Amino acid sequence: MSKKSYGDKSLALHRKLKGKLGIQSKTPIENKEDLSAIYTPGVAEVSLVMSKNPKLAREMSIKSNAVMVVSDGSAVLGLGNIGPYGALPVMEGKALLFKKFADIDAYPICLATQDTEEIIQTIKNISVGFGGINLEDISAPKCFEIEERLKKELDIPVIHDDQHGTAIVVLASLINALKVVKKEKDNIKIVVNGAGSAAIAITNLLMRYGATPKNIIMLDSKGTLGKHRTDLNTYKQKIANKTNGSKTVGGLEDALKQADVFIGVSVGNVLKTEWVDTMAEDPIVFAMANPDPEISLELSRKTKIKVFGTGRSDYPNQINNVLVFPGIFRGALDSGAKQITEEMKLVSALAIAGLISKKDLKPEYIIPNPFDKRVAQAVAKAVKKQVRK
Amino acid sequence: MSKKSYGDKSLALHRKLKGKLGIQSKTPIENKEDLSAIYTPGVAEVSLVMSKNPKLAREMSIKSNAVMVVSDGSAVLGLGNIGPYGALPVMEGKALLFKKFADIDAYPICLATQDTEEIIQTIKNISVGFGGINLEDISAPKCFEIEERLKKELDIPVIHDDQHGTAIVVLASLINALKVVKKEKDNIKIVVNGAGSAAIAITNLLMRYGATPKNIIMLDSKGTLGKHRTDLNTYKQKIANKTNGSKTVGGLEDALKQADVFIGVSVGNVLKTEWVDTMAEDPIVFAMANPDPEISLELSRKTKIKVFGTGRSDYPNQINNVLVFPGIFRGALDSGAKQITEEMKLVSALAIAGLISKKDLKPEYIIPNPFDKRVAQAVAKAVKKQVRK
Repeated sequence: MSKKSYGDKSLALHRKLKGKLGIQSKTPIENKEDLSAIYTPGVAEVSLVMSKNPKLAREMSIKSNAVMVVSDGSAVLGLGNIGPYGALPVMEGKALLFKKFADIDAYPICLATQDTEEIIQTIKNISVGFGGINLEDISAPKCFEIEERLKKELDIPVIHDDQHGTAIVVLASLINALKVVKKEKDNIKIVVNGAGSAAIAITNLLMRYGATPKNIIMLDSKGTLGKHRTDLNTYKQKIANKTNGSKTVGGLEDALKQADVFIGVSVGNVLKTEWVDTMAEDPIVFAMANPDPEISLELSRKTKIKVFGTGRSDYPNQINNVLVFPGIFRGALDSGAKQITEEMKLVSALAIAGLISKKDLKPEYIIPNPFDKRVAQAVAKAVKKQVRK
Repeated sequence: MSKKSYGDKSLALHRKLKGKLGIQSKTPIENKEDLSAIYTPGVAEVSLVMSKNPKLAREMSIKSNAVMVVSDGSAVLGLGNIGPYGALPVMEGKALLFKKFADIDAYPICLATQDTEEIIQTIKNISVGFGGINLEDISAPKCFEIEERLKKELDIPVIHDDQHGTAIVVLASLINALKVVKKEKDNIKIVVNGAGSAAIAITNLLMRYGATPKNIIMLDSKGTLGKHRTDLNTYKQKIANKTNGSKTVGGLEDALKQADVFIGVSVGNVLKTEWVDTMAEDPIVFAMANPDPEISLELSRKTKIKVFGTGRSDYPNQINNVLVFPGIFRGALDSGAKQITEEMKLVSALAIAGLISKKDLKPEYIIPNPFDKRVAQAVAKAVKKQVRK
């Protein structure tokens, strides 16, 4: 289906539904007895008990299973800063995915402010009834501070999914792709094209997993990151200082020479076939720009690329964070975790990768598809096990 | 059932349910086609359209049917300032009633701040995805400013239900009670015991309906309001200046002489039988303190009270704002109203009162019961008709 017809179909559906999600009661309300139990006078006793011991909210209220899906609309999909009304149908859709894949009651909140402090304060103010917070489609660099501050100042799990959901599913994909090409994590050259929030999170998680920092080269629109760059913000600078041990200067063409892995979180069609030729043997290419990957499936087949993944549902190896966020929050909510830690991210990636058996593993199947029901369960189980540790 | 056993039953239910409400998808998500329509890539088109024309949110997103039920926990039920965790099960319950009685998708938001400006700013910041705002259990006098400001600064209906929901259902009850005792609205003496936010809203609505201001006497814990009082806040002062034409000084006993109507929004058991004796013939008594009314049903029967109403579900004539808020928001959402106006409140009260036919009307049946399905429909219809005007 073409991009246009996907859009037309979606528009028609949204006009028909007038809102994709609704509220349902988990208990019947048919008579005065029911009313007295869910509302006054009976509920007064619950109110008293919870006000004295707010921790009980996780046992007796929606806080046990509610996740806020919150955006200020500053970086929506690939559309940029289109504001909170543009973000609304995306957050609604994301909330549905939480329900579908992990039976989590997520609620979309779109913010009429793009000010960092006000975003933080607003989310804190409404966090009472939520058991977790999924930050979504918030632009860099403010997304870093918002996430950091909320993690520090709240006692419920907070994750910026564009960063960490993406990083986890990329790591899961890379773990299996390396098995296919029989290479080792600490002995590969990785090029990350893009230096936005997702790219930084991916690079950080790869390093934590065991990729060798000096063998990673990141690029922004002006070229390779490294100590030679004097124009970087603090977030880019920090990661530039750790990576690019070869001190490569220049653009993507320069960075790619003898690279084993290309990870694209940039824009469509920037990866040329002749540059792929200069990569190491059996290259792994994750071209995740949406809707057009950094190199098309058709062109990729004319190169020596061994493992190819994209963000697209109509290509093999869809590297999609829907494989991550439902399970990681399911695990966090069920275990009463107060944070999503780095270890939880690692075990999530390993759990996803582990679902594909040696037998089934092949270049076109390194990552489960979004409808594989085992995924959220496996991630949740791994997270819970990690929290128990 | 005793208060304690209601509480025990409610506690058990809340422990079992771990949250009374959940999210449901209004559309199936079974394959990649579904995913592409509710989420990426299709949703991008909806995002673009809505970002360019935010008004479409009412036609294509949850904003069409979502109401925020929001509290800071500063005046929860009769329990006082027990904070947002104490408020949470009440707001959840209220959200369920919106669903049950008017098919509205209400979501409970409890605020971790009790600062007026911060409450206003937070609610404004998250109002994007909501089609209406039901303020709940917020203490006076800040509830006045919060409601006023939000009404002015937002273009969706905002109502503080403790004030106006209560006022509307009291007016509906009074309209029918006056028919029973064959008295006229402009020729009765009304005593309002209480001068909190509900009492002030009731008095304002009664005056707007046509009760004669100088024939109304309000009382707070220190006695009658009037020009003789120098200790009143601006809200009480404003209404004191309009009412108590007889310049009655003193307490409830003094105010009640020859009164036709007693409206209690105060505390239990403050109305003595011997004071009822001094009221006019066929007195109407709405004793709405919870859980113990200003005079018990048993004692009321030993007096000349002709029409007796309370807030209790186990007594006749339950004066409960569940008769109001579902229908008024249903009507407002369906008509695209940007405010709840005074006229909408009046027609709501008339619609509720009008549901009881002359034939059925009697002292023990002046107001429909909460499960009467006609109520929300009738209120919504009246509101829509008023908006069309």
